[in-house]
Amino acid sequence: MKNKGYFITFEGADGCGKTTQSELVQKYLEDKGFEVVWTREPGAKGLGQNIRQLLLHYDGDVAPMCEAFLFLADRAQHIEHLIKPAVAAGKIVVCDRHTDSTIAYQGYGRGEDIGQLKYLNNLATGAIKPDLTFVFDVSTEVAQTRVGSEKDRMESAGIEFHKKVRQGYLEIAKQEPERVKVVDANNSIEKVFEDTKKILDAFLNQ
Amino acid sequence: MKNKGYFITFEGADGCGKTTQSELVQKYLEDKGFEVVWTREPGAKGLGQNIRQLLLHYDGDVAPMCEAFLFLADRAQHIEHLIKPAVAAGKIVVCDRHTDSTIAYQGYGRGEDIGQLKYLNNLATGAIKPDLTFVFDVSTEVAQTRVGSEKDRMESAGIEFHKKVRQGYLEIAKQEPERVKVVDANNSIEKVFEDTKKILDAFLNQ
Repeated sequence: MKNKGYFITFEGADGCGKTTQSELVQKYLEDKGFEVVWTREPGAKGLGQNIRQLLLHYDGDVAPMCEAFLFLADRAQHIEHLIKPAVAAGKIVVCDRHTDSTIAYQGYGRGEDIGQLKYLNNLATGAIKPDLTFVFDVSTEVAQTRVGSEKDRMESAGIEFHKKVRQGYLEIAKQEPERVKVVDANNSIEKVFEDTKKILDAFLNQ
Repeated sequence: MKNKGYFITFEGADGCGKTTQSELVQKYLEDKGFEVVWTREPGAKGLGQNIRQLLLHYDGDVAPMCEAFLFLADRAQHIEHLIKPAVAAGKIVVCDRHTDSTIAYQGYGRGEDIGQLKYLNNLATGAIKPDLTFVFDVSTEVAQTRVGSEKDRMESAGIEFHKKVRQGYLEIAKQEPERVKVVDANNSIEKVFEDTKKILDAFLNQ
Protein backbone atom coordinates (compact mmCIF):
# COMPACT_ATOMS: atom_id res chain seq x y z
CA MET A 1 0.00 0.00 0.00
CA LYS A 2 1.33 3.38 -0.94
CA ASN A 3 2.06 5.78 1.92
CA LYS A 4 0.30 9.12 2.05
CA GLY A 5 2.75 11.87 1.13
CA TYR A 6 3.39 14.92 3.30
CA PHE A 7 5.01 18.30 2.94
CA ILE A 8 6.83 19.33 6.14
CA THR A 9 8.73 22.61 6.51
CA PHE A 10 11.44 23.68 8.96
CA GLU A 11 11.46 27.33 9.93
CA GLY A 12 13.09 29.71 12.35
CA ALA A 13 15.56 32.56 12.61
CA ASP A 14 19.23 32.07 11.66
CA GLY A 15 21.00 30.00 14.31
CA CYS A 16 17.86 28.19 15.48
CA GLY A 17 19.17 24.78 14.42
CA LYS A 18 16.44 23.99 11.88
CA THR A 19 18.79 22.57 9.26
CA THR A 20 20.32 20.12 11.78
CA GLN A 21 16.84 19.10 12.96
CA SER A 22 15.57 18.67 9.39
CA GLU A 23 18.45 16.29 8.69
CA LEU A 24 17.79 14.33 11.90
CA VAL A 25 14.12 14.10 10.95
CA GLN A 26 15.01 12.87 7.48
CA LYS A 27 17.08 10.02 8.98
CA TYR A 28 14.40 9.25 11.59
CA LEU A 29 11.70 8.97 8.92
CA GLU A 30 13.87 6.91 6.60
CA ASP A 31 14.61 4.49 9.45
CA LYS A 32 10.85 4.15 9.89
CA GLY A 33 10.61 3.13 6.23
CA PHE A 34 9.35 6.39 4.70
CA GLU A 35 10.76 7.69 1.45
CA VAL A 36 12.02 11.20 2.21
CA VAL A 37 13.04 14.06 -0.08
CA TRP A 38 15.15 16.71 1.63
CA THR A 39 15.10 20.10 -0.05
CA ARG A 40 15.38 23.79 0.70
CA GLU A 41 14.56 27.31 -0.45
CA PRO A 42 15.80 29.41 -2.04
CA GLY A 43 17.76 27.62 -4.70
CA ALA A 44 16.32 24.10 -4.94
CA LYS A 45 17.58 21.74 -7.64
CA GLY A 46 17.30 22.44 -11.35
CA LEU A 47 16.05 25.84 -12.47
CA GLY A 48 16.07 27.09 -8.87
CA GLN A 49 19.82 26.64 -8.68
CA ASN A 50 20.22 28.47 -11.98
CA ILE A 51 18.18 31.36 -10.57
CA ARG A 52 20.31 31.37 -7.43
CA GLN A 53 23.49 31.40 -9.52
CA LEU A 54 22.11 34.25 -11.57
CA LEU A 55 21.52 36.30 -8.40
CA LEU A 56 24.92 35.44 -6.90
CA HIS A 57 27.00 36.03 -10.01
CA TYR A 58 25.27 38.94 -11.71
CA ASP A 59 27.83 41.71 -11.96
CA GLY A 60 25.61 44.67 -11.14
CA ASP A 61 22.84 45.86 -8.86
CA VAL A 62 19.62 43.89 -8.74
CA ALA A 63 16.40 45.87 -8.18
CA PRO A 64 14.61 44.75 -4.95
CA MET A 65 11.41 43.78 -6.81
CA CYS A 66 13.49 41.91 -9.39
CA GLU A 67 15.07 39.88 -6.60
CA ALA A 68 11.67 39.25 -5.00
CA PHE A 69 10.23 37.99 -8.31
CA LEU A 70 13.27 35.76 -8.90
CA PHE A 71 12.74 34.10 -5.50
CA LEU A 72 9.04 33.67 -6.32
CA ALA A 73 9.98 32.11 -9.67
CA ASP A 74 12.22 29.67 -7.79
CA ARG A 75 9.35 28.86 -5.41
CA ALA A 76 6.83 28.32 -8.22
CA GLN A 77 9.19 25.92 -10.00
CA HIS A 78 10.07 24.15 -6.73
CA ILE A 79 6.45 23.45 -5.78
CA GLU A 80 5.37 22.38 -9.26
CA HIS A 81 8.32 20.23 -10.27
CA LEU A 82 9.60 18.82 -6.97
CA ILE A 83 7.25 19.17 -3.98
CA LYS A 84 3.90 18.34 -5.59
CA PRO A 85 5.10 15.28 -7.55
CA ALA A 86 7.00 13.89 -4.52
CA VAL A 87 3.99 14.25 -2.20
CA ALA A 88 1.72 12.75 -4.87
CA ALA A 89 4.09 9.76 -5.07
CA GLY A 90 3.67 9.14 -1.32
CA LYS A 91 6.98 10.64 -0.24
CA ILE A 92 7.62 12.96 2.68
CA VAL A 93 9.14 16.25 1.58
CA VAL A 94 11.33 17.82 4.28
CA CYS A 95 11.95 21.43 3.29
CA ASP A 96 14.40 23.84 4.95
CA ARG A 97 12.55 27.19 4.75
CA HIS A 98 9.47 27.94 2.68
CA THR A 99 6.66 30.55 2.57
CA ASP A 100 6.73 31.32 6.31
CA SER A 101 10.31 32.57 5.91
CA THR A 102 9.04 35.21 3.48
CA ILE A 103 6.39 36.37 5.94
CA ALA A 104 8.75 36.33 8.94
CA TYR A 105 11.77 37.96 7.24
CA GLN A 106 10.34 40.31 4.59
CA GLY A 107 7.07 40.93 6.39
CA TYR A 108 7.72 41.09 10.15
CA GLY A 109 11.49 41.63 9.84
CA ARG A 110 11.71 44.21 7.05
CA GLY A 111 8.23 45.65 7.42
CA GLU A 112 7.02 44.88 3.90
CA ASP A 113 3.28 44.55 3.25
CA ILE A 114 2.26 41.14 4.66
CA GLY A 115 -0.98 40.98 2.67
CA GLN A 116 0.99 41.49 -0.54
CA LEU A 117 3.58 38.88 0.45
CA LYS A 118 0.83 36.34 1.20
CA TYR A 119 -0.82 37.09 -2.15
CA LEU A 120 2.45 36.53 -4.01
CA ASN A 121 3.23 33.38 -2.00
CA ASN A 122 -0.18 31.99 -2.93
CA LEU A 123 0.41 32.68 -6.61
CA ALA A 124 3.80 30.97 -6.42
CA THR A 125 2.56 27.88 -4.58
CA GLY A 126 -0.90 27.57 -6.11
CA ALA A 127 -2.09 28.05 -2.51
CA ILE A 128 -0.53 24.74 -1.43
CA LYS A 129 0.46 24.87 2.24
CA PRO A 130 2.76 22.62 4.25
CA ASP A 131 0.95 19.85 6.14
CA LEU A 132 3.17 20.48 9.15
CA THR A 133 5.60 23.28 9.98
CA PHE A 134 8.17 23.33 12.76
CA VAL A 135 9.25 26.69 14.08
CA PHE A 136 12.46 26.40 16.09
CA ASP A 137 12.36 29.22 18.56
CA VAL A 138 15.57 30.51 20.15
CA SER A 139 16.37 33.58 22.17
CA THR A 140 18.45 36.19 20.39
CA GLU A 141 21.35 35.49 22.78
CA VAL A 142 21.46 31.75 22.00
CA ALA A 143 21.14 32.39 18.26
CA GLN A 144 24.07 34.81 18.39
CA THR A 145 26.31 32.21 20.02
CA ARG A 146 25.32 29.55 17.50
CA VAL A 147 25.85 31.46 14.26
CA GLY A 148 29.53 31.52 15.25
CA SER A 149 31.64 32.28 12.19
CA GLU A 150 28.63 33.91 10.60
CA LYS A 151 28.28 36.25 13.54
CA ASP A 152 29.29 39.28 11.49
CA ARG A 153 26.39 38.81 9.11
CA MET A 154 24.02 38.50 12.01
CA GLU A 155 25.42 41.50 13.79
CA SER A 156 25.14 43.56 10.64
CA ALA A 157 21.52 42.51 10.20
CA GLY A 158 21.00 43.58 13.77
CA ILE A 159 19.75 42.21 17.04
CA GLU A 160 16.50 44.10 16.57
CA PHE A 161 15.94 42.40 13.23
CA HIS A 162 16.38 38.96 14.79
CA LYS A 163 13.84 39.85 17.47
CA LYS A 164 11.29 40.98 14.88
CA VAL A 165 11.74 37.81 12.84
CA ARG A 166 11.35 35.69 15.97
CA GLN A 167 8.16 37.55 16.93
CA GLY A 168 6.92 37.09 13.37
CA TYR A 169 7.30 33.32 13.56
CA LEU A 170 5.50 33.20 16.93
CA GLU A 171 2.67 35.29 15.45
CA ILE A 172 2.35 32.91 12.49
CA ALA A 173 2.20 29.95 14.91
CA LYS A 174 -0.54 31.69 16.89
CA GLN A 175 -2.58 32.25 13.74
CA GLU A 176 -2.28 28.66 12.50
CA PRO A 177 -1.81 26.45 15.58
CA GLU A 178 -2.91 23.28 13.76
CA ARG A 179 -0.22 23.51 11.11
CA VAL A 180 2.58 25.39 12.87
CA LYS A 181 4.26 23.88 15.94
CA VAL A 182 6.78 25.82 17.99
CA VAL A 183 9.73 23.91 19.46
CA ASP A 184 11.86 25.45 22.20
CA ALA A 185 15.23 25.37 20.46
CA ASN A 186 17.30 26.91 23.27
CA ASN A 187 18.08 23.39 24.50
CA SER A 188 20.65 20.84 23.30
CA ILE A 189 20.29 19.24 19.86
CA GLU A 190 19.22 15.97 21.51
CA LYS A 191 16.52 17.56 23.66
CA VAL A 192 15.21 19.63 20.72
CA PHE A 193 15.10 16.49 18.59
CA GLU A 194 13.15 14.63 21.32
CA ASP A 195 10.53 17.40 21.31
CA THR A 196 10.48 17.44 17.50
CA LYS A 197 9.95 13.67 17.32
CA LYS A 198 6.99 13.86 19.73
CA ILE A 199 5.23 16.37 17.49
CA LEU A 200 6.13 14.39 14.38
CA ASP A 201 4.89 11.08 15.78
CA ALA A 202 1.63 12.67 16.91
CA PHE A 203 1.20 14.11 13.41
CA LEU A 204 1.91 10.80 11.65
CA ASN A 205 -0.39 8.83 13.99
CA GLN A 206 -3.34 11.19 13.76
CA MET B 1 18.52 73.39 -20.86
CA LYS B 2 17.93 69.72 -20.27
CA ASN B 3 15.12 68.09 -22.25
CA LYS B 4 12.23 66.51 -20.41
CA GLY B 5 12.51 62.74 -20.66
CA TYR B 6 9.71 60.51 -21.91
CA PHE B 7 8.84 56.83 -21.85
CA ILE B 8 7.13 55.75 -25.08
CA THR B 9 5.98 52.19 -25.77
CA PHE B 10 5.17 50.39 -29.01
CA GLU B 11 2.50 47.75 -28.83
CA GLY B 12 0.41 45.51 -31.04
CA ALA B 13 -0.12 41.93 -32.14
CA ASP B 14 2.66 40.01 -33.93
CA GLY B 15 3.00 41.24 -37.51
CA CYS B 16 1.68 44.75 -36.75
CA GLY B 17 4.97 46.42 -37.69
CA LYS B 18 5.67 47.99 -34.28
CA THR B 19 9.38 47.12 -34.25
CA THR B 20 9.91 48.79 -37.65
CA GLN B 21 7.95 51.86 -36.53
CA SER B 22 9.86 52.08 -33.22
CA GLU B 23 13.14 52.14 -35.17
CA LEU B 24 11.85 54.82 -37.56
CA VAL B 25 10.70 56.88 -34.55
CA GLN B 26 14.11 56.50 -32.92
CA LYS B 27 15.81 57.92 -36.03
CA TYR B 28 13.19 60.67 -36.39
CA LEU B 29 13.68 61.80 -32.78
CA GLU B 30 17.47 61.63 -33.01
CA ASP B 31 17.36 63.79 -36.15
CA LYS B 32 15.35 66.30 -34.12
CA GLY B 33 18.18 66.34 -31.55
CA PHE B 34 16.68 64.16 -28.84
CA GLU B 35 18.76 61.55 -27.08
CA VAL B 36 16.93 58.26 -27.57
CA VAL B 37 17.31 54.87 -25.88
CA TRP B 38 15.75 52.00 -27.83
CA THR B 39 14.92 48.95 -25.73
CA ARG B 40 12.49 46.06 -25.56
CA GLU B 41 10.81 43.51 -23.35
CA PRO B 42 11.28 40.76 -22.48
CA GLY B 43 15.03 40.44 -22.27
CA ALA B 44 16.43 43.95 -22.03
CA LYS B 45 20.15 44.44 -21.49
CA GLY B 46 22.03 43.12 -18.45
CA LEU B 47 20.18 40.90 -16.02
CA GLY B 48 17.15 40.80 -18.33
CA GLN B 49 19.18 39.06 -21.00
CA ASN B 50 20.48 36.58 -18.43
CA ILE B 51 16.89 35.82 -17.43
CA ARG B 52 15.93 35.37 -21.08
CA GLN B 53 18.90 33.02 -21.63
CA LEU B 54 17.90 31.07 -18.57
CA LEU B 55 14.39 30.58 -19.97
CA LEU B 56 15.61 29.69 -23.44
CA HIS B 57 18.35 27.28 -22.43
CA TYR B 58 16.94 25.56 -19.36
CA ASP B 59 16.82 21.87 -20.17
CA GLY B 60 13.49 21.00 -18.61
CA ASP B 61 9.93 22.19 -18.15
CA VAL B 62 9.35 25.59 -16.64
CA ALA B 63 6.22 25.98 -14.46
CA PRO B 64 3.87 28.66 -15.90
CA MET B 65 3.98 30.79 -12.73
CA CYS B 66 7.77 30.46 -12.67
CA GLU B 67 7.91 31.83 -16.20
CA ALA B 68 5.51 34.66 -15.30
CA PHE B 69 7.64 35.66 -12.29
CA LEU B 70 10.83 35.55 -14.38
CA PHE B 71 9.28 37.99 -16.88
CA LEU B 72 8.19 40.23 -14.00
CA ALA B 73 11.72 40.10 -12.58
CA ASP B 74 13.03 41.21 -15.97
CA ARG B 75 10.48 44.05 -16.04
CA ALA B 76 11.34 45.23 -12.51
CA GLN B 77 15.04 45.34 -13.34
CA HIS B 78 14.37 47.03 -16.69
CA ILE B 79 12.31 49.87 -15.22
CA GLU B 80 14.63 50.47 -12.25
CA HIS B 81 18.01 50.26 -13.97
CA LEU B 82 17.30 51.43 -17.52
CA ILE B 83 13.98 53.21 -18.09
CA LYS B 84 13.77 55.38 -14.95
CA PRO B 85 17.40 56.64 -15.06
CA ALA B 86 17.19 57.38 -18.80
CA VAL B 87 13.95 59.37 -18.47
CA ALA B 88 15.37 61.19 -15.43
CA ALA B 89 18.41 62.14 -17.55
CA GLY B 90 16.12 63.78 -20.14
CA LYS B 91 16.26 60.96 -22.70
CA ILE B 92 13.38 59.48 -24.66
CA VAL B 93 13.00 55.76 -24.04
CA VAL B 94 11.47 53.93 -27.01
CA CYS B 95 10.38 50.51 -25.80
CA ASP B 96 9.20 47.62 -27.98
CA ARG B 97 6.47 45.97 -25.85
CA HIS B 98 5.83 46.65 -22.17
CA THR B 99 2.98 46.19 -19.63
CA ASP B 100 0.16 46.44 -22.19
CA SER B 101 1.54 43.31 -23.90
CA THR B 102 0.98 41.38 -20.68
CA ILE B 103 -2.63 42.56 -20.46
CA ALA B 104 -3.35 41.97 -24.16
CA TYR B 105 -1.63 38.57 -24.48
CA GLN B 106 -1.98 36.89 -21.08
CA GLY B 107 -5.16 38.70 -20.09
CA TYR B 108 -7.34 39.09 -23.21
CA GLY B 109 -5.53 36.45 -25.28
CA ARG B 110 -5.10 33.61 -22.76
CA GLY B 111 -7.92 34.56 -20.43
CA GLU B 112 -5.81 35.02 -17.30
CA ASP B 113 -7.12 37.26 -14.50
CA ILE B 114 -6.61 40.86 -15.70
CA GLY B 115 -6.87 42.33 -12.20
CA GLN B 116 -4.09 40.03 -11.04
CA LEU B 117 -1.93 40.86 -14.06
CA LYS B 118 -2.37 44.60 -13.44
CA TYR B 119 -1.46 44.15 -9.78
CA LEU B 120 1.73 42.26 -10.70
CA ASN B 121 2.60 44.79 -13.42
CA ASN B 122 2.26 47.59 -10.88
CA LEU B 123 4.56 45.82 -8.45
CA ALA B 124 7.13 45.29 -11.20
CA THR B 125 7.04 48.87 -12.48
CA GLY B 126 6.44 50.72 -9.21
CA ALA B 127 3.23 51.89 -10.93
CA ILE B 128 5.21 53.86 -13.53
CA LYS B 129 3.28 54.10 -16.79
CA PRO B 130 4.41 55.04 -20.29
CA ASP B 131 3.84 58.70 -21.17
CA LEU B 132 2.66 57.66 -24.62
CA THR B 133 1.77 54.27 -26.08
CA PHE B 134 1.24 53.43 -29.74
CA VAL B 135 -0.96 50.48 -30.57
CA PHE B 136 -0.45 49.37 -34.16
CA ASP B 137 -3.70 47.79 -35.19
CA VAL B 138 -3.83 45.33 -38.09
CA SER B 139 -6.46 42.95 -39.32
CA THR B 140 -5.71 39.28 -38.71
CA GLU B 141 -5.39 38.75 -42.49
CA VAL B 142 -2.73 41.43 -42.91
CA ALA B 143 -0.82 40.23 -39.84
CA GLN B 144 -0.77 36.68 -41.21
CA THR B 145 0.79 37.84 -44.47
CA ARG B 146 3.41 39.90 -42.64
CA VAL B 147 4.71 37.32 -40.19
CA GLY B 148 5.95 35.39 -43.24
CA SER B 149 8.53 32.86 -42.19
CA GLU B 150 7.12 32.91 -38.69
CA LYS B 151 3.71 31.98 -40.03
CA ASP B 152 3.82 28.53 -38.45
CA ARG B 153 4.13 30.00 -34.98
CA MET B 154 1.24 32.31 -35.64
CA GLU B 155 -0.91 29.56 -37.11
CA SER B 156 -0.20 27.35 -34.15
CA ALA B 157 -1.15 30.13 -31.76
CA GLY B 158 -4.34 30.45 -33.74
CA ILE B 159 -6.31 33.02 -35.67
CA GLU B 160 -8.73 33.25 -32.75
CA PHE B 161 -5.91 34.12 -30.40
CA HIS B 162 -4.73 36.94 -32.64
CA LYS B 163 -8.26 38.33 -32.74
CA LYS B 164 -8.53 38.29 -28.95
CA VAL B 165 -5.18 40.04 -28.53
CA ARG B 166 -6.21 42.67 -31.08
CA GLN B 167 -9.50 43.25 -29.26
CA GLY B 168 -7.56 43.48 -26.00
CA TYR B 169 -5.37 46.27 -27.32
CA LEU B 170 -8.41 48.19 -28.62
CA GLU B 171 -10.07 47.80 -25.22
CA ILE B 172 -6.96 49.16 -23.45
CA ALA B 173 -6.94 52.16 -25.82
CA LYS B 174 -10.62 52.80 -25.07
CA GLN B 175 -9.91 52.77 -21.33
CA GLU B 176 -6.91 55.13 -21.52
CA PRO B 177 -7.43 57.33 -24.59
CA GLU B 178 -5.02 60.03 -23.34
CA ARG B 179 -2.06 57.68 -23.12
CA VAL B 180 -2.84 55.03 -25.72
CA LYS B 181 -3.11 55.99 -29.38
CA VAL B 182 -4.25 53.52 -32.03
CA VAL B 183 -2.62 53.69 -35.45
CA ASP B 184 -4.18 51.91 -38.45
CA ALA B 185 -1.28 49.64 -39.36
CA ASN B 186 -2.90 47.93 -42.36
CA ASN B 187 -1.32 50.54 -44.63
CA SER B 188 2.22 50.82 -46.03
CA ILE B 189 5.18 51.42 -43.72
CA GLU B 190 5.41 55.01 -45.03
CA LYS B 191 1.74 55.79 -44.44
CA VAL B 192 1.79 54.23 -40.97
CA PHE B 193 4.90 56.26 -40.13
CA GLU B 194 3.20 59.47 -41.31
CA ASP B 195 0.30 58.79 -38.94
CA THR B 196 2.71 57.89 -36.13
CA LYS B 197 4.69 61.11 -36.59
CA LYS B 198 1.52 63.22 -36.39
CA ILE B 199 0.64 61.72 -33.01
CA LEU B 200 4.24 62.00 -31.82
CA ASP B 201 4.58 65.67 -32.86
CA ALA B 202 1.30 66.53 -31.16
CA PHE B 203 2.53 64.82 -28.01
CA LEU B 204 5.89 66.60 -28.00
CA ASN B 205 4.35 70.01 -28.69
CA GLN B 206 1.63 69.78 -26.05
